[in-house]
Amino acid sequence: MPTPSEMVRAVESELLELQERLCREFEACDGSARFREDAWTRAEGGGGRTRVIEDGAVFGKGGVNFSHVTGASLPAAASARRPELAGRGFQALGVSVVMHPVNPYVPTSHANIRFFIAEKPGAEPVWWFGGGFDLTPVYPYDEDCMAWHRTARDLCAPFGDEVYPAHKAWCDEYFHLKHRGETRGIGGLFFDDLNEWGFERCFDYWKAVGHGYGDAYVPIVQRRKATPYGERQLDFQRYRRGRYVEFNLVYDRGTLFGLQSDGRTESILMSLPPIAHWRYDYRPEPGSPEAALADYLKPRDWLSGASADEP
Amino acid sequence: MPTPSEMVRAVESELLELQERLCREFEACDGSARFREDAWTRAEGGGGRTRVIEDGAVFGKGGVNFSHVTGASLPAAASARRPELAGRGFQALGVSVVMHPVNPYVPTSHANIRFFIAEKPGAEPVWWFGGGFDLTPVYPYDEDCMAWHRTARDLCAPFGDEVYPAHKAWCDEYFHLKHRGETRGIGGLFFDDLNEWGFERCFDYWKAVGHGYGDAYVPIVQRRKATPYGERQLDFQRYRRGRYVEFNLVYDRGTLFGLQSDGRTESILMSLPPIAHWRYDYRPEPGSPEAALADYLKPRDWLSGASADEP
Repeated sequence: MPTPSEMVRAVESELLELQERLCREFEACDGSARFREDAWTRAEGGGGRTRVIEDGAVFGKGGVNFSHVTGASLPAAASARRPELAGRGFQALGVSVVMHPVNPYVPTSHANIRFFIAEKPGAEPVWWFGGGFDLTPVYPYDEDCMAWHRTARDLCAPFGDEVYPAHKAWCDEYFHLKHRGETRGIGGLFFDDLNEWGFERCFDYWKAVGHGYGDAYVPIVQRRKATPYGERQLDFQRYRRGRYVEFNLVYDRGTLFGLQSDGRTESILMSLPPIAHWRYDYRPEPGSPEAALADYLKPRDWLSGASADEP
Repeated sequence: MPTPSEMVRAVESELLELQERLCREFEACDGSARFREDAWTRAEGGGGRTRVIEDGAVFGKGGVNFSHVTGASLPAAASARRPELAGRGFQALGVSVVMHPVNPYVPTSHANIRFFIAEKPGAEPVWWFGGGFDLTPVYPYDEDCMAWHRTARDLCAPFGDEVYPAHKAWCDEYFHLKHRGETRGIGGLFFDDLNEWGFERCFDYWKAVGHGYGDAYVPIVQRRKATPYGERQLDFQRYRRGRYVEFNLVYDRGTLFGLQSDGRTESILMSLPPIAHWRYDYRPEPGSPEAALADYLKPRDWLSGASADEP
């Protein structure tokens, strides 16, 4: 078993590599805008490397952010299952990604992989991994949803048949807007507090999740980025982005952890879309492509069978 | 001392009257759009009368919402100071107002007045009033800020010299975006858990706050609604509206209470602006009118002295 510093070094090097890979691929996809980088430090300890892309041909706003923060007292939002660790000294490392495309036919995507280690003099260090990715289409294509979930299932397979169903269900449960009675999108994977497989195996799974995100998302962007759209589709996209804002500010534990731990606000809130609309009691016309989205905002089995594919 | 049902009847009738008055005056101000009304009921008990105005000449989006909800178990967010009442049966009555004007020179305003009564068999009923109003300018005029606070002070005066300073300070403290290090706007009044003056006096103060809001806001709207503006001012308005969304979804106790008590989501979230922008790490040009706003987002004494008045 590696020491805490060995773990942190291995995790950090993996995160920086993933950040590089994703930025390179997203820039290639975009073909126009480049990520700008802001390195930052945090008074209490640690810092990060925020990379943001804006006003691209394909991506309106997106971020691929690395951070490694240390603190004297773990905030409650850091661990769902280990409230007894709140108050310990900690290190938290992660990469967070949110990509908001320009074209309403290209889904927004999110990924986060993170590692925590909480230490206290005279006690065993406690570490765990968390992560996942999820897809938020505005005009969903079944083909994309199925491919997204197949990639998720395939990367989980080497770690046991129960992993995909468990982490898929956790994702559906986590990305749920209770006050709207709908999920944020079509899900993917979500896990937290993972350490029961031992460090090496957990680390391997966690790496597979980070890279699986890129493998799953890039082909969808390529497939849809040239789809023609108009003002109607943009309007609905802006309306749906309001829901994205609602989820991130009301429910998202990563956002709350960041704000509670005096994180860098601009890096945390890069997840918010470039523009969002709210219209009182808006209801899409029955039978319209906009109304069809509701069916996608309930947990669904995306691996069995195929169906029609026109938004 | 009135019985609980007498209190509820008096409070309800006052709230409905205030709703009428504000809608009438805002429609007159707007000159074009009208409020639409949605009456709603809530499975657990009670309901409301939501009135929303959209796409007006003066108001882009606004709501003047009455609600009277009853429940078997008071949510924790309902009372800051009385956590021991959580779980009691309750009635909550209130009017909530948020007005988002079209013109960036006209400030957004918010008011809320509410009354709670929590009952339990074999125990004394506990009741309290809460309320207040606050102003969120994009391009502030000192004249407006001073007039707003003078109206606040004057309505407080009959209830004691300490009321305005105390409730003004409470407002500055409440409408504070910790993660941004700024207030939501230039404040006003805020109070909660008010019952120590006895029912009649509390009720009188609370009515004065509700009507004082209309008295303070309407003249500001009239004064600024014809000010010429362009795309630059609209851009900054949309950016600042992002902060409004951040406050309401991350911090606002009324919003949390509504969502926790399975309130009517569309009525609760009518407070969100019609449109909001987020731009990574945006900073206004030093010396610009946009940069000048920062000075207004710190608590300030608005009653002493005058100063220049050009945004």
